[in-house]
Amino acid sequence: MAVYTQVSDAALAEFLTDYDIGEAQSFKGIAEGVENSNYFLETTTGKYILTLFEKRVNAADLPYFVELKRHLAGAGFPCPQPIAGNDGDCLRSLEGRPALIVSFLNGLSVKSPNKAQCFELGKAMAMMHAALKDFELSRQNDLGPSDWPKLWQGRADTANSLRARLSGDIDADLAAIAAAKPLEFQLPRGTIHADLFPDNVFFSGDTFSGVIDFYFSCTDALAYDVAVCLNAWAFNDMGSYDLQKGKALLDGYQDIRKLEPEELDALPVLARGAALRFFLTRLVDWTDTPTDALVKPKDPLEYARKLDWHRSLGLMASSYGA
Amino acid sequence: MAVYTQVSDAALAEFLTDYDIGEAQSFKGIAEGVENSNYFLETTTGKYILTLFEKRVNAADLPYFVELKRHLAGAGFPCPQPIAGNDGDCLRSLEGRPALIVSFLNGLSVKSPNKAQCFELGKAMAMMHAALKDFELSRQNDLGPSDWPKLWQGRADTANSLRARLSGDIDADLAAIAAAKPLEFQLPRGTIHADLFPDNVFFSGDTFSGVIDFYFSCTDALAYDVAVCLNAWAFNDMGSYDLQKGKALLDGYQDIRKLEPEELDALPVLARGAALRFFLTRLVDWTDTPTDALVKPKDPLEYARKLDWHRSLGLMASSYGA
Repeated sequence: MAVYTQVSDAALAEFLTDYDIGEAQSFKGIAEGVENSNYFLETTTGKYILTLFEKRVNAADLPYFVELKRHLAGAGFPCPQPIAGNDGDCLRSLEGRPALIVSFLNGLSVKSPNKAQCFELGKAMAMMHAALKDFELSRQNDLGPSDWPKLWQGRADTANSLRARLSGDIDADLAAIAAAKPLEFQLPRGTIHADLFPDNVFFSGDTFSGVIDFYFSCTDALAYDVAVCLNAWAFNDMGSYDLQKGKALLDGYQDIRKLEPEELDALPVLARGAALRFFLTRLVDWTDTPTDALVKPKDPLEYARKLDWHRSLGLMASSYGA
Repeated sequence: MAVYTQVSDAALAEFLTDYDIGEAQSFKGIAEGVENSNYFLETTTGKYILTLFEKRVNAADLPYFVELKRHLAGAGFPCPQPIAGNDGDCLRSLEGRPALIVSFLNGLSVKSPNKAQCFELGKAMAMMHAALKDFELSRQNDLGPSDWPKLWQGRADTANSLRARLSGDIDADLAAIAAAKPLEFQLPRGTIHADLFPDNVFFSGDTFSGVIDFYFSCTDALAYDVAVCLNAWAFNDMGSYDLQKGKALLDGYQDIRKLEPEELDALPVLARGAALRFFLTRLVDWTDTPTDALVKPKDPLEYARKLDWHRSLGLMASSYGA
């Protein structure tokens, strides 16, 4: 179970007296979210998700995430809306953990997104970026290019044990990205989701219905969010890049906001960098997840295969469908 | 996550075309159930639970469990009601597993039942026994007295590693129960739940609202169900027997069906036997659960402490509150 902290019925009843959302009618731990404990909660007033933040999340970041969702929900962008207690505070405490109730979002996440869904996702992402244009809080991306060499340090043997000579490829990726100096790119910045995987996006059929899980959100290049999504949405199940899906995603995005020439120029480096970021964090989780953990680590090699593609010679924005 | 089998959105949509319950609006794995994968499913017609049966469950038993729930629901007893597909069959197949959709039951399970809830549980159990009086299918209890010595075989060292000299106590329990010849007891028999722990019973406040998880149900002495519940409901969190709760549970039960003199006589042996059954299966799970399992095994020592109490000299039905 991805429920690390148990909440007793008595603790829940007491907790809900701080809100004006009625009494619990149903309460079930849900098997979602690697970092936190999540519960489905239905009260006399509706459906909610209760999250207890576990120790991997930096408590100092929580107000940022809450304000971000409040801002988006206020702008009409479909995402879980934080529910305030009677004193106006959304972030509260339950079973010794920071706790948050948000509204429940209908919709299903798709396992293998189709072209129409890639288009919708691109459009939704651009709308999210637009809705966050006047969001005033900021948070540094703590999984950016300067963090990647640190993640990689001492893990070459693990990489090679997963795939022969993989460490040489990763060294080459890191060197190529460092040479491109991504931190000097002058690209439009703003608040990005930074983890907009299919798991975190809901659809009703092919129609986008909402985004969840903003716990990697930060201030960074908007095109980096696009690059993350190209990795997460536009590769097919066999591991090769699907130009049609990539084009749909980029078309959807540009339906709302045109990518600038510098962003298009940067796209191959950003896409390779994003793949490297997920490869590296998966590699870390692969080694560091205790064997008795409640959640299985994800396969780093999925991202090693995506890196193989990004590593091809002569890639341009058009190689991705732009 | 206690979700062993992933269900893709596409497989779910295809699966639902065999039913007349509308389209999925929400679908979430729930962190409940040690044996199976369970999903919360909301469609345009209501809320459901979708269960995929994993390999620990004997597929040959599934029709029994389905018919049992249909029978109970038909008799107006609150439990998840199996939903039939368009061809009339409830048991279907999804992602290579036997699969069942049941109606969603509102209510919360209680962690530390109070006296009023023990009374309600006792009453509900007797009503369940009554509702099952004309249920015609039968299933052998495969965790009964003759199975206990087999479970115990070769586990003395494990027991002693958990608590010094525990194996001697367990040997004594097994010998005492064997000497009482529980299989020769002439007690009223019927269909019992056999695992009616607080996890599996829902309340709305102090009012009973339903029973779930019938996957240990079988044909056995009705008083054995009572004995399981005395263990699971009437011990307080510190591990000592709460006579008031025990009395409330028995009073609730006898409000609907009076226990016969032979059942009362058998109660101490049945209660000790039930504690032994849960101690032994927990001990097996303790050793046999791989360290990377998705579910943590439950503490066998909780039941070793209950056995200490049942092992007291001169216990009678009145010691339990009857």
